[in-house]
Amino acid sequence: MPTEVAAGGLEAGLLPALRALASDPAARGLADDCAVVDWPLGAQLVVTHDMLAEGVHFTRGCPAADIGWKLVAVNLSDLAANGARPLGILLGAGIGRGRGLDWADELVRGVGQALKQFEVALLGGDTIRAPDASVLAATAIGWLPAGTALARSGAHARDELWLSGEIGGAGLGLQVALGARSFGAADAALLRRLRRPQPRIALGLALRGIATAAMDVSDGLLLDAGRLADASGLQARLESERLPCVAAATAAGVAPAQLAAAGDDYELLFTAPASRRPAVLAAASRARIAVSCIGAMQPGAGVLLDGAPPAQLGYRHF
Amino acid sequence: MPTEVAAGGLEAGLLPALRALASDPAARGLADDCAVVDWPLGAQLVVTHDMLAEGVHFTRGCPAADIGWKLVAVNLSDLAANGARPLGILLGAGIGRGRGLDWADELVRGVGQALKQFEVALLGGDTIRAPDASVLAATAIGWLPAGTALARSGAHARDELWLSGEIGGAGLGLQVALGARSFGAADAALLRRLRRPQPRIALGLALRGIATAAMDVSDGLLLDAGRLADASGLQARLESERLPCVAAATAAGVAPAQLAAAGDDYELLFTAPASRRPAVLAAASRARIAVSCIGAMQPGAGVLLDGAPPAQLGYRHF
Repeated sequence: MPTEVAAGGLEAGLLPALRALASDPAARGLADDCAVVDWPLGAQLVVTHDMLAEGVHFTRGCPAADIGWKLVAVNLSDLAANGARPLGILLGAGIGRGRGLDWADELVRGVGQALKQFEVALLGGDTIRAPDASVLAATAIGWLPAGTALARSGAHARDELWLSGEIGGAGLGLQVALGARSFGAADAALLRRLRRPQPRIALGLALRGIATAAMDVSDGLLLDAGRLADASGLQARLESERLPCVAAATAAGVAPAQLAAAGDDYELLFTAPASRRPAVLAAASRARIAVSCIGAMQPGAGVLLDGAPPAQLGYRHF
Repeated sequence: MPTEVAAGGLEAGLLPALRALASDPAARGLADDCAVVDWPLGAQLVVTHDMLAEGVHFTRGCPAADIGWKLVAVNLSDLAANGARPLGILLGAGIGRGRGLDWADELVRGVGQALKQFEVALLGGDTIRAPDASVLAATAIGWLPAGTALARSGAHARDELWLSGEIGGAGLGLQVALGARSFGAADAALLRRLRRPQPRIALGLALRGIATAAMDVSDGLLLDAGRLADASGLQARLESERLPCVAAATAAGVAPAQLAAAGDDYELLFTAPASRRPAVLAAASRARIAVSCIGAMQPGAGVLLDGAPPAQLGYRHF
């Protein structure tokens, strides 16, 4: 970050805000080529990298602070899915040519809100001018005791399939954002579900040693359940009546199958033996998030909803 | 990487090439939310993140494999500047709307060439469609024994100032790439200096415990020497007659002061006490790279070339 931040007008303008977020000594005040991070003894490093692009992952009119939040949150959600404790973020901000310092400052403000909420350090990064639309990247760094990482591939036949929180909130929020539909008094909360996702970090930590497989639901429950099933060499069987649907959807008559094909909820999908049900519920209670048993794993491939292959699996960005 | 890679046509097409590069077990076959990396005992984590954008850092006509190489190399160069041993890369590929799978495949081929050359693993990442021009990001992860990291801020007054390799090659290469000038038979080598930079990893490792400060020269020697001086609270004094200029520049009559303001050479700039000169030369010999003593540090601020503030410091991307 240092070189590029110092090089141009926009970067120089953003530097005070970025430095304020980079208070961890490992970030070295964003004044060097790299961050240098003390490492917990016996810990494995867990890293992930996700990008968000204007016109693909967010609309041009989306508030910049919300984009900053989401960039951090989607990366932390990947760490949560592996049961890792987040440690830091590197921020790659490709600020579109048409955006001013005010927009970039708002973006950084949203990044900072998420970092503060989830107690994560800004370690470094790069700020550049993107030639047209904004393209943002982040790398999240976490750790866990060696050998405790959760993976998509660990499910066994007859494991129960669990989901945190509710599905469909972000999907309905997208309809609100696009002006396609209104859900009345629920609109603000739905928009918030879309734009301020909550990575289930505490749940991921609590599920280490309990869950046999885990992943976060970013592209829709059915699509992602199919991925977990594929990685584990099994079939995921879901029951629509057990899906935890956002209340506004039920009120508006949106079917569970539709919600299960909508993306961006960032809940955790995980499996555990039926015998571990008390441990799962205790972990969820410690993490202060509701969990629902939505089905089970069985021999086979792909995903079944109410016994049949779903008509639509999930949301694809293109 | 897994979710996004699997989601679209381009990503699905790129996945075989990416998986071939991600042979390290830590990458988990790019089939999970994160990479999980075993960590060397007692090591600190060193991380950096740099982006490259079409029209800003590379021209539309630049061969895609060269862009992929450079994306890896500039990030590894930051690790080298800190004396870290590279371990892995996360790749964020925002592929411009107008680019086909062939272009993206070439990009990944260049990434792979650099990974192989520098013995670094592909750990994960994200592949998305960028709305217009391509915007690329990478995070490089390295390690070093705790407490051995080099920094820009460690120089002392009277330390000698050293530079690896030669300056100006990439700057002249840019003139060749833009069709602004030809240097005859040297053109191909100059283009290669611009498009296939060589991070000085071995030198960075060899300088641990010897150099008092270090950084890589990305935006021009004078600009970056000024940054090292600022970080150390000193002034950098450079002598133009001691600058190691690329031979084609001397032949074409390009002045050292111009070369010292040209960017993209990715050489290491470092300081050491005069008493450590034998150790510096031995380290360079081990790393098989020439080094030149180009000046010294002294009380004051900023940078002097032949005793005066330079007219032009360096290259700014915008």
